[in-house]
Parts: sequence; structure tokens; C-alpha cells
Amino acid sequence: MLDIATRVYNHNFRIDPIVRSLLDTDFYKLLMAQTILRRHAEVAVTFGIQNRTSRIRIADEIEEGQLREQLDHARTLRLSRGEATWLRGNSFYGKRQMFSAEFVAWFETFQLPDYELTRRNGQYVLTFHGRWLETTMWEVPALAILNELRSRATLRDMGRFELQVLYARAMTRVWEKIERLRRLPDLSIADFGTRRRHGFLWQDWCVQAMNEGLGAKFLGTSNCLIAQRREVEAVGTNAHELPMVYAALAGDDDAALARAPYAVLADWQQDYAGNLLVALPDTYGTSGFLANAPDWLTAWTGIRIDSKEPIAGGEEAMAFWRARGCDPAGKLAIFSDGLDIEGIERIHAHFHGRMRLGYGWGTLLTNDFRGLVPDGRLDPISIVCKVIEADGRPTVKISDNPTKAQGPAAEIERYRRVFGMEDQEALPILV
Amino acid sequence: MLDIATRVYNHNFRIDPIVRSLLDTDFYKLLMAQTILRRHAEVAVTFGIQNRTSRIRIADEIEEGQLREQLDHARTLRLSRGEATWLRGNSFYGKRQMFSAEFVAWFETFQLPDYELTRRNGQYVLTFHGRWLETTMWEVPALAILNELRSRATLRDMGRFELQVLYARAMTRVWEKIERLRRLPDLSIADFGTRRRHGFLWQDWCVQAMNEGLGAKFLGTSNCLIAQRREVEAVGTNAHELPMVYAALAGDDDAALARAPYAVLADWQQDYAGNLLVALPDTYGTSGFLANAPDWLTAWTGIRIDSKEPIAGGEEAMAFWRARGCDPAGKLAIFSDGLDIEGIERIHAHFHGRMRLGYGWGTLLTNDFRGLVPDGRLDPISIVCKVIEADGRPTVKISDNPTKAQGPAAEIERYRRVFGMEDQEALPILV
Repeated sequence: MLDIATRVYNHNFRIDPIVRSLLDTDFYKLLMAQTILRRHAEVAVTFGIQNRTSRIRIADEIEEGQLREQLDHARTLRLSRGEATWLRGNSFYGKRQMFSAEFVAWFETFQLPDYELTRRNGQYVLTFHGRWLETTMWEVPALAILNELRSRATLRDMGRFELQVLYARAMTRVWEKIERLRRLPDLSIADFGTRRRHGFLWQDWCVQAMNEGLGAKFLGTSNCLIAQRREVEAVGTNAHELPMVYAALAGDDDAALARAPYAVLADWQQDYAGNLLVALPDTYGTSGFLANAPDWLTAWTGIRIDSKEPIAGGEEAMAFWRARGCDPAGKLAIFSDGLDIEGIERIHAHFHGRMRLGYGWGTLLTNDFRGLVPDGRLDPISIVCKVIEADGRPTVKISDNPTKAQGPAAEIERYRRVFGMEDQEALPILV
Repeated sequence: MLDIATRVYNHNFRIDPIVRSLLDTDFYKLLMAQTILRRHAEVAVTFGIQNRTSRIRIADEIEEGQLREQLDHARTLRLSRGEATWLRGNSFYGKRQMFSAEFVAWFETFQLPDYELTRRNGQYVLTFHGRWLETTMWEVPALAILNELRSRATLRDMGRFELQVLYARAMTRVWEKIERLRRLPDLSIADFGTRRRHGFLWQDWCVQAMNEGLGAKFLGTSNCLIAQRREVEAVGTNAHELPMVYAALAGDDDAALARAPYAVLADWQQDYAGNLLVALPDTYGTSGFLANAPDWLTAWTGIRIDSKEPIAGGEEAMAFWRARGCDPAGKLAIFSDGLDIEGIERIHAHFHGRMRLGYGWGTLLTNDFRGLVPDGRLDPISIVCKVIEADGRPTVKISDNPTKAQGPAAEIERYRRVFGMEDQEALPILV
């Protein structure tokens, strides 16, 4: 009763492709791309990979030929008819026609642009030059490819039952976390784990497990393809690349630079509404951002607390809303930085009943294989794909955690001055 | 790419059969059946189910209709051509043509005989009357059906991912035991877990995991079907039913009764040789059995230590061999009673280097779901299918553990006198 057709079909692939659809990306990339298409279609930027876990020499673990094959395969992908139909016909955050006809038409013609790949000190230097609109689409697939190739390099040497037990252990671990999450009152949690996932099939399993195990407490996934296939919500808003590019485009004008983070929000609230109005305040320091924020920001649904220690960050958000005459109980705080079960429980115990709470759970949902093979060879690493240049000017990210700062030292100094940033305490980065 | 044919085929079954082949039984049943065919083809016996874990009311957990369907389905089975070919052509314990042409020819015409099923006090009274040669073949499938139906009654209410995580946990547990076993020098261990297994597919998984995880330390499985399909050794020798029937057939003759256990061995060594010459000494007390054993027993390969505390039982076997002028280092002790990893490690630490050691690992290999669902509903139970009558006389089993004694009180008393049995210490039965 062998399914010969399936077997023959699978053997037709020269490789086992990691990314098989342009929808295998995070929902917020599409929201941001739509804004970029509308407002900044001709801006040119460079994205680049950075492995913050520099002790892991990725270029020694992953063969360059295999990396090129996967990147090249991703470049062959086109939006399928059914995928375009889903973008046109599905409702997102309760709203129909979230994506304009122009955007979907553009997406239907889109292909991932070329890449540049070299090596340095055991790391890959992987960069994407070109229109912001196009290069931005590389972030998630490039990271997913690097992370899954790293997994495969370890899995290749394992026996069939050893593999099955590996996944049995990982499943048990995820499920035990879900069982703990189930006990949290009024929980609302989403999968944000596409970019750092162990692999596509594993993320797909995690989403289904969350869906069965948490029911209404599971909000959905940032992964569009899984959201489509599993009929769950696609979730996400925006990322640091927007203020980073806006700030770089301000050029040498300090006043324009100081306005840039709010210009992002002003554009965003013209383009989107409702639950998409969640501000990401930490690109150049949360404290200064909130102190100088226009009053209209208090009308937004909430704030995402990313690089700051989460209890301090949440308290700061509540203080901001109170200072501007808003009741924090009606506001939403979304936590999304390096979360794991203990952190979620701690944050929930601290804030539950005082604000609305949401969690974007990433790497330690979809890639927690810590300790499951010797030498931590499946432990996740902190690897990012960031915009590093916009129209010829370097971009800068500082955030609330100096360990995550990025950009030329002189520019960082200037930004710190313009945004009135105090000295910061460095927090360790796990993932 | 759906495999329509497989799906349609599976839906053709009115039920999901638990036992799908007459080879889905323990190897020693075939060895014993061959001896019975050759020597006792017309003896009539009764086999009956007994659930020693009486607090578990099986008849409340399993629907009678489902039990009948499974038993009826088992009665439709016939040995297939490929199965007969395997019995004829395969080598067992290194020997070709272990099974005679007469035996395989008989097996090809065999079908499981009828059964009687009633209920009493929350238990099923399930009995098999008829020729020993035929009723003996019910032991393993009847137990496998009861145990798997009990599993299914619990699994039925679980969600898809809950189920997957259940198996993930059970797999992890088995694998962790295998990882510990791997460290034991000169280990030789076999799967004896057919009758009490959680389910067929699960036993099949356990055997494959043992095979991959232990390599040459894994001797094989008692399950003929799995041995055939997975191309591993089929292992096992004989069981208490032989001395029990021989003893019952001795009638009122005390001298004949006293000779019966040795008559079994005398017949057995005519029928088989080599590694199949492993004596099971405990049916009417190991100490008396060894004290009165004929000297030719020392030429046997080894002794199976079943109902006695294993360290004491092993020491007693060594003392026996030394007393008869044999070096125990060349003899084989097989341990098979309620083993789990801790017990195996303890026995191995005690005896390794002093005797050859073998382990027949049963219930806690193929059915260790202890604590994985609430209220221990998947915990294994101590259920047996024993011969209770032979040619109209009750059978008696005493063993080294009075908790396992079976038979009418007056007969037990007589057997104790004939076999010179001392007072025994009761040991708890876990499985």
C-alpha cells in the first residue's frame, strides 16, 4: 500500500527545501512591506545577518553549498494563486481587506532579490542590497534557513529512533510549558518563533499543540503560511526596522532625527488601526521615547515591551499612561523578548489585572532543544537579520539593552545625545 | 497526494483489530505447542483469565461487545503462506528446521477455538476449553486483547496532541531506560512483553528502539510476528503450564507427581537442545526442585529465575551448580519476573562476571505508562491466563511467591507435602 506517487514526488526535489512558500514569513513583514510600498517604494537599504552568539562558528557548522542551495531555492518562489486569495479574502485582526489590491498585485510579481555571501572568522557575511521593499522580505527566510541548516547539520548523524526520542523529548517539553500556561488566567499568547525555529515542521507542530492545548488563550501565529494552513490567526505589528530607516533618512538633521520615531507612528496609524496600533518604543530608549511622545499616542491600543527588563518596562508603560490621564487597565502591553515559561509566569503574576497582557513567544517556543544533544549543538543562538544602511547612511539601533546596540560608534553617540539617553544597564542575551 | 487505497482499505475493517496474525504470539507457545502435538495431542485442558490486580474492575472499563469483537476476529485468523515459510525457513537460536513439517502443517490448519465469556464482580470470566494444543494458543492473544482494550478505553477521550505527547513521554521513558542499559557490560536482554503490552504498535516500537539503542546487547523479542517483520531473533523457551499439566496428569499418585517436573525436562531435552535447555524450576518451589534434580540437569544451559527474589534465586542457582561440581561462570541465569531498569541494574551489579546473565523484560518495557494519565488509568495490571484444569483434574501452581499460588487449597496442601515445600515469604506483585 506504498504511496508511490508521494515518494516519487519527494525525490524530484534536488534538495529538501527549507522555505517552500513566500508566505512562510512573519505577518508583520507584510504589514511593513505594505507601508513601505505606499510611502518609501524607492528607498534602498542593506540588510545583514549578525550572529550575536559569536562563540558558535556557523560557517564551520553549515556547508556554504547547502546554504546557497537553500537561498537560491527561496529565490525561485512566487506567491501562489491560493496564497494571494488568502491575503485578499481572509480577515486579519477582525478586519477584511487589510491588504490593498496594489499590495497583493505587487506581491504576486515579487521574487526575493539576490544576496551576497562571504565568510569571516567562522561566520557567514550574508547581505541583501536593494530596494527596501524587496530586501526586507529576506529577513525571516534567511534566518529560518540558517537556523534549520544548523539543526540539520546535527540531526544528520542521528539514528532513526534516537531522532524519534529527540522529538519526543522536545514535544514533552513544549507540552509541559503549555500545561503551565493553561493555568494563567486571561492569558493571550501568540507564536512569534518563525525566524529562530528549529525547523518548519517543528514550528507547525508547536502551533498546533498550542492551539489544542490552550484553546482561546492561543491568539495565533506570526507565520502566515501556518496561519493559512491551520486556520489560525496571523498576528504581529511592526519592528525596529521602521524607526531605524526613518532615522537614517533624517540625515544630519538632529531635529528630524528626533521626530523620526514619531513619524513612523504617524504613518502607521494612517495605514492601520485597532490592534495593529501597538507602539514599539525602545529603538532609541523607551524612557526618552515616552517622555517626548505626542499625546495622540495614548489613543493607541498598547505598547510592545521588548529590550527592557519586562517588569521595569511594564511599570514604565503603566506610569506613562497614568501620567497622560489614561487608565492602564484598558491598555495592552505585549511582551516579546526572549520569553520562556518562567518569564511569562513572572510577568503575568506581576501585571495580571492591572493591564491587558499579550505575549509574543519566539525562540524558546519553536527552538527549545537545549541540552537534548551533547555539547548543546541544538541550543538556539541569538542570530538576527537587521537593516544596516538606508540610502547610503548607516542605521542605528540602541534599544534599552546596550548589548543589542548596532551602528557606527559616532552615530550611536549622536543618537544618544539627540534622544537624551541615560547610561544603561547591559542585560545578557540568551536568544 | 493522499493514499486513497490505504484509506479505503483501513475503512474496510469493521473494527480496528488488535491481533492480526497467529504469529502475534510468544515464541515459547510454538515450542510448547510442538511438544504438546508430539506427546499430548489429545489432552484436554481449560485455560482461564485471572486479574490479580482485583481493584481494577476490567469489566467496567472494557465493553463486552468490543471484547467479543476482538476475540471473534482473532478466531478468523489463519497462518499465512509467508508466515509458514518463515517458520519453515528461518533459523531459531542458530538452528534450522526448529519446527517439524508435521507441526507447521498442523499450524497451517489451526484456528483459535471457541471461548466462554461471563462477568463476575467487575471482572471478566474468560475461559477456553478443549484440546491443550489449541487452548494453549489463546493465552497470549487473549491477554494482549484485554490489555490493549483497556488502553484504548482511556485513549479514546484524549485529544490528538495530548495523545502525541503521551507517546512522546512514554518513548522518552523507554529510551532513558535503554540509555542506562547500554552502560551494562556483557548485557543480553530480550523483549518478553507481548501479553501485557500497551498495544501492538507500541511493542513494535519498543523492539525497534531496543534494537537500535542496544545493538548486539539486544537478543531479540518473544513476539514471532515482530521478530519476522523486523528481522530480529525470536526468543523464549517454556512456561509453567508444562509442569502444571504434567503434574495434574499424575493424578493421585504422589510418586508420579514428584517425578512430573523432571518428566517435563526429560521430554524437553529430547525435543530441543542448546539454548532452549533453560529450566524453569519454581513451579513447586525452587529449593526442592533443585535438591531433587537429576544430575543430567547440570548439563543444561541454564535456569530461569522467575518468582523468587532475584538475588536470592541467582545465588541459589549458583550454589546448585557448585554443589553438583559445575562452574557457574559457564551457566546461564535468565531473569524474567517483573523486571524494570533498577532491578536489572541491581541484578547485573550483583552477578556480572559470576554467571552468564540474560533478561526477559516484559510488562515494564512494553507497558510502562505509569503516571502518564490521571488516576493511573494506563498503569499496567497483573493479569494472567493460566491452565486451570487438565483431563478433569485441577492444576496447581505454587512457585516461590505464595501471592502467585493457584489451585484448590487441598491440592496445594498435597503438592506442598509431596514437593517438601517450606514456609514461604510473600512478595508483592507489581506486574
